Amino acid sequence: MRALLIAGALLAPGSAFSQSTIVVRGATVIDGTGRAPIADAAIVMTGGRITAVGPAAAVPTPAGARVIDGRGKFVMPGLMDANVHLVYGMSVEFLARYEDRFDDLIAEAAQVALANGLTTVFDSWGPLRPLQRVRDRIARGEIPGARLFAAGNIIGFTGPFGRDFNGPAETTVSKPFVKRINDLWEEGTGPEVMWVTPDSLRSVIRGYTAKGPNFLKYGASGHYLQEMLMFSPEQQRVIVEEGHRAGIVVETHTTSVESLRLAMDAGVDLMQHCSITGRVPMPAALLDRLKTGSPYCAIQSMTNERLAIETGAKAAGFPPRVYWDELIRAQDQNERRMIAAGIPVLLATDAGIMNPDEAASVPENQRQDNNTALGQAHFLWFRATAEKGMKPMDAIVAATRNIARAYRKDDELGTLEPGKRADLLLLDADPLADIANVEKIAAVIKDGVAVNRAALPVIRVLTRR
Amino acid sequence: MRALLIAGALLAPGSAFSQSTIVVRGATVIDGTGRAPIADAAIVMTGGRITAVGPAAAVPTPAGARVIDGRGKFVMPGLMDANVHLVYGMSVEFLARYEDRFDDLIAEAAQVALANGLTTVFDSWGPLRPLQRVRDRIARGEIPGARLFAAGNIIGFTGPFGRDFNGPAETTVSKPFVKRINDLWEEGTGPEVMWVTPDSLRSVIRGYTAKGPNFLKYGASGHYLQEMLMFSPEQQRVIVEEGHRAGIVVETHTTSVESLRLAMDAGVDLMQHCSITGRVPMPAALLDRLKTGSPYCAIQSMTNERLAIETGAKAAGFPPRVYWDELIRAQDQNERRMIAAGIPVLLATDAGIMNPDEAASVPENQRQDNNTALGQAHFLWFRATAEKGMKPMDAIVAATRNIARAYRKDDELGTLEPGKRADLLLLDADPLADIANVEKIAAVIKDGVAVNRAALPVIRVLTRR
Amino acid sequence: MRALLIAGALLAPGSAFSQSTIVVRGATVIDGTGRAPIADAAIVMTGGRITAVGPAAAVPTPAGARVIDGRGKFVMPGLMDANVHLVYGMSVEFLARYEDRFDDLIAEAAQVALANGLTTVFDSWGPLRPLQRVRDRIARGEIPGARLFAAGNIIGFTGPFGRDFNGPAETTVSKPFVKRINDLWEEGTGPEVMWVTPDSLRSVIRGYTAKGPNFLKYGASGHYLQEMLMFSPEQQRVIVEEGHRAGIVVETHTTSVESLRLAMDAGVDLMQHCSITGRVPMPAALLDRLKTGSPYCAIQSMTNERLAIETGAKAAGFPPRVYWDELIRAQDQNERRMIAAGIPVLLATDAGIMNPDEAASVPENQRQDNNTALGQAHFLWFRATAEKGMKPMDAIVAATRNIARAYRKDDELGTLEPGKRADLLLLDADPLADIANVEKIAAVIKDGVAVNRAALPVIRVLTRR
Amino acid sequence: MRALLIAGALLAPGSAFSQSTIVVRGATVIDGTGRAPIADAAIVMTGGRITAVGPAAAVPTPAGARVIDGRGKFVMPGLMDANVHLVYGMSVEFLARYEDRFDDLIAEAAQVALANGLTTVFDSWGPLRPLQRVRDRIARGEIPGARLFAAGNIIGFTGPFGRDFNGPAETTVSKPFVKRINDLWEEGTGPEVMWVTPDSLRSVIRGYTAKGPNFLKYGASGHYLQEMLMFSPEQQRVIVEEGHRAGIVVETHTTSVESLRLAMDAGVDLMQHCSITGRVPMPAALLDRLKTGSPYCAIQSMTNERLAIETGAKAAGFPPRVYWDELIRAQDQNERRMIAAGIPVLLATDAGIMNPDEAASVPENQRQDNNTALGQAHFLWFRATAEKGMKPMDAIVAATRNIARAYRKDDELGTLEPGKRADLLLLDADPLADIANVEKIAAVIKDGVAVNRAALPVIRVLTRR
Repeated sequence: MRALLIAGALLAPGSAFSQSTIVVRGATVIDGTGRAPIADAAIVMTGGRITAVGPAAAVPTPAGARVIDGRGKFVMPGLMDANVHLVYGMSVEFLARYEDRFDDLIAEAAQVALANGLTTVFDSWGPLRPLQRVRDRIARGEIPGARLFAAGNIIGFTGPFGRDFNGPAETTVSKPFVKRINDLWEEGTGPEVMWVTPDSLRSVIRGYTAKGPNFLKYGASGHYLQEMLMFSPEQQRVIVEEGHRAGIVVETHTTSVESLRLAMDAGVDLMQHCSITGRVPMPAALLDRLKTGSPYCAIQSMTNERLAIETGAKAAGFPPRVYWDELIRAQDQNERRMIAAGIPVLLATDAGIMNPDEAASVPENQRQDNNTALGQAHFLWFRATAEKGMKPMDAIVAATRNIARAYRKDDELGTLEPGKRADLLLLDADPLADIANVEKIAAVIKDGVAVNRAALPVIRVLTRR
Repeated sequence: MRALLIAGALLAPGSAFSQSTIVVRGATVIDGTGRAPIADAAIVMTGGRITAVGPAAAVPTPAGARVIDGRGKFVMPGLMDANVHLVYGMSVEFLARYEDRFDDLIAEAAQVALANGLTTVFDSWGPLRPLQRVRDRIARGEIPGARLFAAGNIIGFTGPFGRDFNGPAETTVSKPFVKRINDLWEEGTGPEVMWVTPDSLRSVIRGYTAKGPNFLKYGASGHYLQEMLMFSPEQQRVIVEEGHRAGIVVETHTTSVESLRLAMDAGVDLMQHCSITGRVPMPAALLDRLKTGSPYCAIQSMTNERLAIETGAKAAGFPPRVYWDELIRAQDQNERRMIAAGIPVLLATDAGIMNPDEAASVPENQRQDNNTALGQAHFLWFRATAEKGMKPMDAIVAATRNIARAYRKDDELGTLEPGKRADLLLLDADPLADIANVEKIAAVIKDGVAVNRAALPVIRVLTRR
Repeated sequence: MRALLIAGALLAPGSAFSQSTIVVRGATVIDGTGRAPIADAAIVMTGGRITAVGPAAAVPTPAGARVIDGRGKFVMPGLMDANVHLVYGMSVEFLARYEDRFDDLIAEAAQVALANGLTTVFDSWGPLRPLQRVRDRIARGEIPGARLFAAGNIIGFTGPFGRDFNGPAETTVSKPFVKRINDLWEEGTGPEVMWVTPDSLRSVIRGYTAKGPNFLKYGASGHYLQEMLMFSPEQQRVIVEEGHRAGIVVETHTTSVESLRLAMDAGVDLMQHCSITGRVPMPAALLDRLKTGSPYCAIQSMTNERLAIETGAKAAGFPPRVYWDELIRAQDQNERRMIAAGIPVLLATDAGIMNPDEAASVPENQRQDNNTALGQAHFLWFRATAEKGMKPMDAIVAATRNIARAYRKDDELGTLEPGKRADLLLLDADPLADIANVEKIAAVIKDGVAVNRAALPVIRVLTRR
Repeated sequence: MRALLIAGALLAPGSAFSQSTIVVRGATVIDGTGRAPIADAAIVMTGGRITAVGPAAAVPTPAGARVIDGRGKFVMPGLMDANVHLVYGMSVEFLARYEDRFDDLIAEAAQVALANGLTTVFDSWGPLRPLQRVRDRIARGEIPGARLFAAGNIIGFTGPFGRDFNGPAETTVSKPFVKRINDLWEEGTGPEVMWVTPDSLRSVIRGYTAKGPNFLKYGASGHYLQEMLMFSPEQQRVIVEEGHRAGIVVETHTTSVESLRLAMDAGVDLMQHCSITGRVPMPAALLDRLKTGSPYCAIQSMTNERLAIETGAKAAGFPPRVYWDELIRAQDQNERRMIAAGIPVLLATDAGIMNPDEAASVPENQRQDNNTALGQAHFLWFRATAEKGMKPMDAIVAATRNIARAYRKDDELGTLEPGKRADLLLLDADPLADIANVEKIAAVIKDGVAVNRAALPVIRVLTRR
């Protein structure tokens, strides 16, 4: 990155530079489509979009363009994470301390993501309004940060101070605080909506889509592995219909074989945690259905190191008969089978930034390989899927094009093709040789602007210097 | 009853008297079919069965028969309760104290039931093996008691020491004790079976029916109003199919509109608590489907007095957002609508005998009108449904013929017709004039034998003299 | 107060006005000594101190003095509260939300106190350093507020996140947060010091007095009525000796007969809650010893209305066998006996400002007569002691001179005598006619400066406008 | 033992054999006084008492006596345990299951003790009436068992369902059950007595001694290390005076330096756990006072293996700041210092028989070296004190004569001297060579009767065959 800085290509976030033209020449380009890389390539970006990409010899440098010397480097699309939580915490301690700073927390997290190569993230459970505010400020270039799309609540789930997350808080914390927090997340789509008829549910969902979430997520299974099912097939179809009517993608949280199957039958576009099928493996018939990418399957893979942690000390904390250890072993097996079968999965991590006070309270032996720590979680995902047999090219596609497609953003994002947003990474080493090389980021370009990674996060609430 | 005793018609339980012939002459007979009563009737019982019933003038007294003078009295079929729990308690205190005496508890409860006019009860959640043992001893006449049919576990539910009942016990009590108790109830049909595929579930259910339950019950909703759904439609159909394949009735526990509808679609025969639909009223379309009695609807009606208790002090103990008070108000409204619509409901109470230590710990203001106290619960049901507009004749049918039909026992039970089991009550006052008169029991005859009510229960564990 | 403002006598807090001379003429002066009031009196204040007081005819107005027309009004010393908690809350919610604002909370509370006539308060459990900072800012006139003296921790007690207060927090909240909060309160004087020898304890206390608390308080009994005793007689003597060696008053928290007696034997100067003697009444011999005012007895009297609340709904929340209701009935009786015996008690309230979110969660029927709400608590104390038979003059002395004497501040505070600090109230009605008239405050003068009560609190964290 | 059986010396428990004369000849006798052993000795017992002991040559065999060949064996006094709990459990599960069988539990435990060489045990917290009943049955020879002395409650402590033991039960279990259990233990001496004046306490204690406990025990410190002190010095003196007035020994439960010192000052005879002084070591001055044996010091020593368990996994379960691990390390150091200083300690174990269900729930890694398992606990005590440097002879005296003296039973028990009860062990190996040889018991003789150890316990409730 030193060389790039000298070249003067790195500007302050939100600068007007995106109106200029920038060209990376000489690098090997892996374009995210899964096609073979282009050695000694050139990629031209103007006005925040890619205008040309191909062998350097075939791509002229426009007049007035600034040229970045990419020789010896590797270019790939900006990484995406199909599942993050930019407000990450459900403890009373966390939410009381930061209730007035959710916008700052979200901005900080989006900046941590961007600094680590994530140019786009999908927040699949969080406070809708603050997420929208920060999303829009980033989109307008007012502050730096990963491009952000937000679902708001998981339909049918409580907010943080409810049974799906921190249930005890509901009775131990002051009523106004509980209500403010839960209302901010739920926006009228809390657990009460499970109990109504499909018709009543339709108007609830219609009201919610009017608030402008970028996608819908509903609970096919409950959060803590106790509710195998939450909505009837008819209710699920209503949610999917209303999401599609509003032109947005519908995804689910699912943790059992039957909920997975019913969600697929309901027509969802994307399934989070779809490799979690409880204590039983995924039936072959379901696995086959996933091959088409309809719906897409987002997996939160764990490295072997993390598997050992989860099946060890941590398992002790789960309620009896939740069988956490069996469940994640089944998940591991499902993912190995999915990878072997070539199912087009998505990188997803559930990552966020933990309150440092609480992070310091995690037992020492459970901190290594923290696969939900935003900034490192996606890199651990690459290691984990590699351990399970995924080829580097498939992993890159899983973290770029597949996510764009699953979320119907592939007209703009996910690959390095003319017309797409100019989001890309320059790497110092070849990720196809070793996928761990995605961590060797020389530069991040978003919307055609090189990111000042060293300055991020600009807003520091949870991040210590 | 004094007169009857003098007449020598009352024999010890289990005597050979049922081989003799007994005739009740002169009473008004309400036969449980819903037809008009027969004044000055005669009913002849031989070998434990009814051989003739009709106007006294038309029914001769067989030679050698003993005659009971029924003048001024009213005869109706023995009462039935579609939902009892003869081992009634889930506290550590109760189960540790009585673990070695479940057979005695069951026998005692069946005797308390019989002494109070219940000639047949259906136990819909309890320890299968002890229930079967006692059921058989009663059936063989070895001990007195209400005729007993048992489901064992509610498929998908835990035993007493699990999340569906006393969840905390699971972690605070010794492991061997938890395991023994839960195993005794679950018999392999605990919450784990929710997570398997329909095919795997089929073999679980097949294994369970082989153990000889008299009917199957599964959880369409969870017990504590938190799981709206438990099994997928396909899983539900498997349970129903396997029950029917084994020749037994299949019923559900259901507490939401959607679970009710899905259970009906799955083809269940009977639904417990089917007037509980959460916070929303039962949709008219569902109400219409119930008119046919397919499936039958068992309701646990509360008197106005009980409603006041439940919506008052007790509601405070429920977790937030369970909305107990709204739920039981909706239940009340549903029942009023069902009664007005003439839906053929069943008397059901969830009754059992409470550990007297724990009964003494119920706050004073919540003890009145204890509608789950076996022995009085069914009488309170009559009062409750009368308050909601049910006519006496409908109430009698709900407590006799409807239950027999719903459980496919109407070839033998439920009405006073030739060929049926001779189970009947003699009342001192006309229940059609005031349904509360069902409480004025002069005599109980079961299998053609007059019951020595004063001696019951013969086994006293929880009953104080 | 309108007239006074017109007269221009009220200046901004901290102004240099205290250098000027101010005279109140024509009012009836009750000087706090217990002597008969002086009708048509004059009281002269210069440089923040009283320079003359007596019949108006005998007290000339110095040249250049501003004169306040006191005709029809009543002057008494500024009120004092012997026991407040300016950081008032031990919930996770409260402490996480306001951890960075303790100084503001303390200043706000001191201002609420001042606006309601309390010119001096004694904080007997709180975070020492923040209290000292705000104490000094008020003393320097940088911010308005009641004069403040602080003990810091109660020796032997935990901070807020420990067994003496919010014990569960200790295990449910992050370790760094627990530590920061408890350290801030305990300053090395937490429960561990109970276990050491008297010699070791001596050096602990010496270290603590070096930090500059204005007085020492130690736990003779535990906070939640479970520990009857905490320190051995020898340990108690060490604490008293070390306090006296440092030239400061030593007081205790005591809630049992034996702890009361032992604390007296140890030589304490003041006892908080000394009317609380558990379930048994105070023995006559102890009562007699209190007559001398050595030690002084601070009582937190409850009105009859509050007693009814405490013995009713709230009692239900206490652990078994704590006998809260019996205890406060014994307390009531003890106070009636103390008042009848003429024991020189002190006004004390434990008051503070509750987090409004949590205040809104107090059940409706427990909010009336909130006798720990700073600003009203001391007025309720006057009502309560009047109900128990205290004469107005005694009540005034209990709230002024007695407190000053008990805390060894009577050279400067507590009475309206030449040389004392010019802290006084102007009342619109005669408090000797009805002690409730202390609530009719026309003006508050502190350090010879009229307080702009309408502007207080200047800092609003918990106070809503 | 085989040989002895052939000799016909072993009779059924409770037989009249004690009227006969029995002589052990040829063994080495260690008489419990601390004097050098007598090789080739003879010991004569008649009527349950020792009539002669000395070198075999000097002790003739009375006519008609039965002679046991003791050659190659070692004789020592029957072992004593200064602190056992024959009803051992405070869980709801245990107490509900066995509430009706406390007498059986006590008898079983006394038999397990006897079978393992304990001829006398002191129960220092238990249900007084059942303990007295079983004590008397054993004393009358109706059932076999260790000689039993009982204190009943620890004065000031709750029964099992109270804060000092299983506090949560108090609110989760039925009120009548809580009351029955606590009343059975407390007999009016529960925590309420801490709050009364010394005079009132005197009459409480007088009432209690009238019920016939064999000794008194009071709480100088609380049970769970949270209350450092419980009674004032004056209250403690009252308890000691009343115990002595009744002619019985008074002992304490103490766990801190100051409570230890105050208890000594109060004049107690014996201190349980006196090596526990919290986190600080025992001051040298206190250690010196213990050298006289006034009061005596009973220690519950842990082996190094147990220390590792306690300072490891188990420590995690303690409330914050109880510092269990530091405490038991300090205890270990105190015991090493006491042993080095030659303080006459007593063997004490707190042992009892655990409910096997609950025993099976103890984590595997905490089961080894279970130093509270009656039957093995005293053997582990010998190993533990040996590890800390105690000489075998001192250990033997600690387990025999010292206990007899401390409890004022040395006129009858504790040594092998003429006139004493004939309680002795025959060992297969020399305990002075290796104290672990006390485990090699060839025979137990109590009251001059050889015990049929293989048959014990005769009553099996908790003991599996």
